[in-house]
Amino acid sequence: MPCGHNTENLVKKKIRAIQYGVGPIGASIAKLMREKQAIEIIGAIDLDPAKAGRDLGEVVGAQDAPWGVKVFADAKEALDLNPDVVIHSTSSSLAKVMDQLTACLEAQSCIVSTCEELSYPFRTHPELAAKLDTTAKEWGVALVGTGVNPGFVMDKLVVTLAAVSQHIENAKALRIVDASKRRLPLQKKIGAGMTVDEFRAQVKAGVVKHVGLPESVAMVADSLNLPVETITETIDPKVATDRVQTEYLTVEKGQAAGVHQIGRGLSKDGKELVNLELQMYVGAKDPADTITLTGHPNISLAIPGGSHGDIATASVVVNSIPVILDAPAGLRTSRDLPIGFFSPNAKP
Amino acid sequence: MPCGHNTENLVKKKIRAIQYGVGPIGASIAKLMREKQAIEIIGAIDLDPAKAGRDLGEVVGAQDAPWGVKVFADAKEALDLNPDVVIHSTSSSLAKVMDQLTACLEAQSCIVSTCEELSYPFRTHPELAAKLDTTAKEWGVALVGTGVNPGFVMDKLVVTLAAVSQHIENAKALRIVDASKRRLPLQKKIGAGMTVDEFRAQVKAGVVKHVGLPESVAMVADSLNLPVETITETIDPKVATDRVQTEYLTVEKGQAAGVHQIGRGLSKDGKELVNLELQMYVGAKDPADTITLTGHPNISLAIPGGSHGDIATASVVVNSIPVILDAPAGLRTSRDLPIGFFSPNAKP
Repeated sequence: MPCGHNTENLVKKKIRAIQYGVGPIGASIAKLMREKQAIEIIGAIDLDPAKAGRDLGEVVGAQDAPWGVKVFADAKEALDLNPDVVIHSTSSSLAKVMDQLTACLEAQSCIVSTCEELSYPFRTHPELAAKLDTTAKEWGVALVGTGVNPGFVMDKLVVTLAAVSQHIENAKALRIVDASKRRLPLQKKIGAGMTVDEFRAQVKAGVVKHVGLPESVAMVADSLNLPVETITETIDPKVATDRVQTEYLTVEKGQAAGVHQIGRGLSKDGKELVNLELQMYVGAKDPADTITLTGHPNISLAIPGGSHGDIATASVVVNSIPVILDAPAGLRTSRDLPIGFFSPNAKP
Repeated sequence: MPCGHNTENLVKKKIRAIQYGVGPIGASIAKLMREKQAIEIIGAIDLDPAKAGRDLGEVVGAQDAPWGVKVFADAKEALDLNPDVVIHSTSSSLAKVMDQLTACLEAQSCIVSTCEELSYPFRTHPELAAKLDTTAKEWGVALVGTGVNPGFVMDKLVVTLAAVSQHIENAKALRIVDASKRRLPLQKKIGAGMTVDEFRAQVKAGVVKHVGLPESVAMVADSLNLPVETITETIDPKVATDRVQTEYLTVEKGQAAGVHQIGRGLSKDGKELVNLELQMYVGAKDPADTITLTGHPNISLAIPGGSHGDIATASVVVNSIPVILDAPAGLRTSRDLPIGFFSPNAKP
């Protein structure tokens, strides 16, 4: 089913979906898709020899495995199954996934991707964005990069809240995440347990980093028409003030407990118009998502406890499936799409 | 310009808008539209002999009046000016405004209306909804009923927050509004200063009431696919526990200070699935908008202080203008539309 069709069509047959990338996020997305009556998972793609050739249900450790769904090492072979939508979750880097995305579009499949740099690539990767938009339109399908962050709490939700404002001068979001309960790869990715020197070296090497803040700054700036000329990003360690122990690792006092990352949107004369601050570290005391808009009127919003990263990303991605199938062909963003909730019981 | 066109077209010429109804809300909408560079107000409609025939800027008390924009008593005469969009703000009752809306659609104009019962009329007024949808499609234009409530805090925002959820069992919203600083007609509409007996009589007479809760319950239930069979609504007085004085009136201890209104969505066996509670009264101590979703995960959201009713309604309405012009023909709801912020500086 090509995208751009009315969702009324969805009543007629199930949405044929392929999971591209079966890492931790891909696995949680696949499990969530499995619960939706309106979706039929017809295949998966993963290069990892430990996964390729096996049953997807078994790979993701589902209780109701096997699913009778094959994990292909060869993307082409999977795409020949003619999916309506590919859920793509392989890398944060847009440059790295261009060929993967292009192959899906050329198979006339819509895409929902967790690639952070795809969430709003018009400022950070304008040429790649234009190329994807052209290819998608050529094949009559739509794609979107989304997730909880980027894709929701620090951009989409900011723009949504702005609907009650008459003027906006400044937009801020603060996301504090306690990484203690999160998976090991994430705890490592944020540098938990490194010395401050190691942390800084790994930041330089591009290993320790949350990807997507500049994209969120750009989406907020463009959506609120704030005259942002320059987008900056800083990454510092959140240093542990006490020993912290997680299921996977120990952070000693004085070591890095995680990242303190700030994306800023600055006007021509250096005035800060957008400030998106992410504190993601083990042992964070008061996790929460907070948005503050200065303007007329001033308005703020808080999600106490914050939206849980992995659960929320799978949710946002799967909830975006009916929406992308209904979207006009081309490169879309979470900003343009009326995202909502895709019930498990929604009929195909 | 017909709706359903790409917003890229908006770059080429200003949006030609007509304000239909110049009461307090209509006036604040007109003033806000006046600030938007991309909008040209080409006329207004109001039957009130104190307004008809005069300049709109003067009627709304604008500092930069006169605007050179006429208030017409005759809707047809105004609609002959060929607006792209009519901002409609005359009544809460959909039955009462059907002829007004139909005339706008037949003039091939899109509509953004503050008519509360239009916000999600599919359960409460299915026949009128179908009629408007058919007429709109026939003339190739789109319409939406919106505002801050219904249209945003107790429905759209609930559905938006649901995007981070995997399962939802129950949805609650609580809106506490301090009516002390609001305009006199609103303070009267919520029964402030009445005895409890008067209040109950005026509720019976349909005078004291916030309109739109059943519509919000329906939007939330349908969007979250909660099996709501019955929608109920209760209206009770919020009784003053102390004497409250506003700019306009005095509420004695024991008198009604405003409304305490609850819309509920119940399953076939009477289980409460949706609960939308509105407390709007003079002297409210902790005004706030709060949303609570029970499911996986549980999630809540708060807007401390709450979104200011009149400012926010004008904002939501004006921010919906580019969106409705870009929407497919037919009856739309705030749920379907990717509402955002329409900058004063957005170029036509």
